[in-house]
Amino acid sequence: MNDRIRLLREKLKNLDLQGMIITNPVNIRYLTNINAEGVLLLTRRENIYITDGRYMEAVKSALTIDDEIVTCDFKELSKEDYENFFIFCENVGFEEANLTYAQYKEYMHKYKINNLAETEGLIEKMRIIKTEEEIECVKKACKITDDCFEYLKDFIKIGMTEKEIAFEIYKFFLTNGADGLAFDTIVASGPNSSMPHAVPTDRKIEAGDPITIDMGCTYNGYCSDMTRTVFAGHVPPHMKPVYELVLNNQKRVLEELRAGANIKLISKSVDSEFKLHGAQMVHSLGHGVGLDIHEYPFINSKHDFVLRENMIVTDEPGIYITGRFGVRIEDTIFVGKQEAQSLTTSEKGYIIVGQE
Amino acid sequence: MNDRIRLLREKLKNLDLQGMIITNPVNIRYLTNINAEGVLLLTRRENIYITDGRYMEAVKSALTIDDEIVTCDFKELSKEDYENFFIFCENVGFEEANLTYAQYKEYMHKYKINNLAETEGLIEKMRIIKTEEEIECVKKACKITDDCFEYLKDFIKIGMTEKEIAFEIYKFFLTNGADGLAFDTIVASGPNSSMPHAVPTDRKIEAGDPITIDMGCTYNGYCSDMTRTVFAGHVPPHMKPVYELVLNNQKRVLEELRAGANIKLISKSVDSEFKLHGAQMVHSLGHGVGLDIHEYPFINSKHDFVLRENMIVTDEPGIYITGRFGVRIEDTIFVGKQEAQSLTTSEKGYIIVGQE
Repeated sequence: MNDRIRLLREKLKNLDLQGMIITNPVNIRYLTNINAEGVLLLTRRENIYITDGRYMEAVKSALTIDDEIVTCDFKELSKEDYENFFIFCENVGFEEANLTYAQYKEYMHKYKINNLAETEGLIEKMRIIKTEEEIECVKKACKITDDCFEYLKDFIKIGMTEKEIAFEIYKFFLTNGADGLAFDTIVASGPNSSMPHAVPTDRKIEAGDPITIDMGCTYNGYCSDMTRTVFAGHVPPHMKPVYELVLNNQKRVLEELRAGANIKLISKSVDSEFKLHGAQMVHSLGHGVGLDIHEYPFINSKHDFVLRENMIVTDEPGIYITGRFGVRIEDTIFVGKQEAQSLTTSEKGYIIVGQE
Repeated sequence: MNDRIRLLREKLKNLDLQGMIITNPVNIRYLTNINAEGVLLLTRRENIYITDGRYMEAVKSALTIDDEIVTCDFKELSKEDYENFFIFCENVGFEEANLTYAQYKEYMHKYKINNLAETEGLIEKMRIIKTEEEIECVKKACKITDDCFEYLKDFIKIGMTEKEIAFEIYKFFLTNGADGLAFDTIVASGPNSSMPHAVPTDRKIEAGDPITIDMGCTYNGYCSDMTRTVFAGHVPPHMKPVYELVLNNQKRVLEELRAGANIKLISKSVDSEFKLHGAQMVHSLGHGVGLDIHEYPFINSKHDFVLRENMIVTDEPGIYITGRFGVRIEDTIFVGKQEAQSLTTSEKGYIIVGQE
């Protein structure tokens, strides 16, 4: 059995669970390397992956003998098969945040389980600490992202639309070794930059525009996440104090993100610093990054949480002045024992684009 | 109040439900035109959309006075506000297929509702019959898809990769008026075409390859869906009987998809026809198309369902010979009173691409 499934089985034992039904596809990928549609059952005796004919070939090529996972086509399972999977089990875990209420009822009926027990992000919590192999994948995704940013600095021209830039980012990722986008790219220019979650539009870049570019790709399933706010032609003087406030805080946080740091306190210090200057944080300071673009730990001033070695998180303060402009600067950060290391390394000073 | 919400309220009344919590974002878009993250509540007195600051501006611009929808920022709602929304309500509907078990428990607690009642796709079923306005949107998405196919016939060259073709489709859609992709484009060449759900790879097109291209875009949220299997350079003679069997069945089904037709019988007739020739259908014959790419009605030989006027469905038989090749031909079809009308109109005879 592979290490991750073995560790999960130990945790289930400690929770007095005799089995688990795993439905979150990202958790299944984490445990098995399978990237398909299906359900993973950990029964008393076996690890069983139930899928359908469309994925059978891909599933079999993802597994090794070491995984000890039996693959089934759901079409070949009878009513009795389902009832036998967890026979004599008192408590079986499930993923309450990933199963719909309708599926929950269906599973209760189909598997005839005495007690389906909530597991409260059991596997998601295992995923917080990254292995060397996982860190390498995130690093590769970050490198492609840095390379893309380097390319964009020359590519972006005044008169180009936000959509054209977003499209070029996608093309760069796909043709430079990424699997795909980690999330929908944000390219928000001029007043659009005041919306933290802007969608690229047909607006054309004008001289003096700030352009917030929030982008990331995946490599072997693992995500990168980076934001830079660049300027078209020149930096309007009134934007400088905002840019510097964001940048200074982003750099300060990066210094503090080491093993043992309390992220609630760090978040609060950014909140206070912004408030002192009449600004405020409308979104979280950061989040974990891995197979999901947003995963544990969530970094904000509400959750008490102490960082540990080998976590990967973002550091992304931002200020948004409604209807006028916004600035966000974000890196993907590796949490080391002594210090943090920024895995995205693109420059963060004033970046001027679009000059002929 | 708008017509769709008024009709839904009537249906709730008939089901003895005094309110409803709507969480499926596609259903919310259908009822309100809002395309954001949030929850729609139909209470005794009001229609309330709860969202957060990020979407407030976009939500307000999507609504008209006629909608009679009150918008709230969840940050401004107290514990008491939530408890008061459904006060004195005996039964409140929810979308059991769209709420996780964890959210269900949270809602039970937060809204203090006596009985949260399953609604069994109530709104999805309203969406089956399309209005003129909706049909126009699907038609526009289909027109862009046809134009894209016309463009591809010249664009595709021997030696090009599947990914390059998929990427060009995306670019064509975005630069020709579509909002985006209706689903991940399939470009499956040579032996890859034997997988119904293939993902575009770096495989280069070779002479004699069949290339299955399954693509669709969205226009104002509404989807198109079309598949053609084309051939690089020439049609290998042994593929012709398979192509013709698929094409003849696809055309025959198109003749039969009118109001009053039973889709179970139509599906069964394709199954039988394929079996007679030693082939079999491994996927459904078709599905409804609208704001979702796959929606009611699902067309297969298991579900008894009679088509009604103004439905939009696909007609997509396919044959897949493992490890060798596959053929699928699909159109998006409007179900009229007297006859069906194919909304995608690209040619379906042998299409040869990649010739210099």
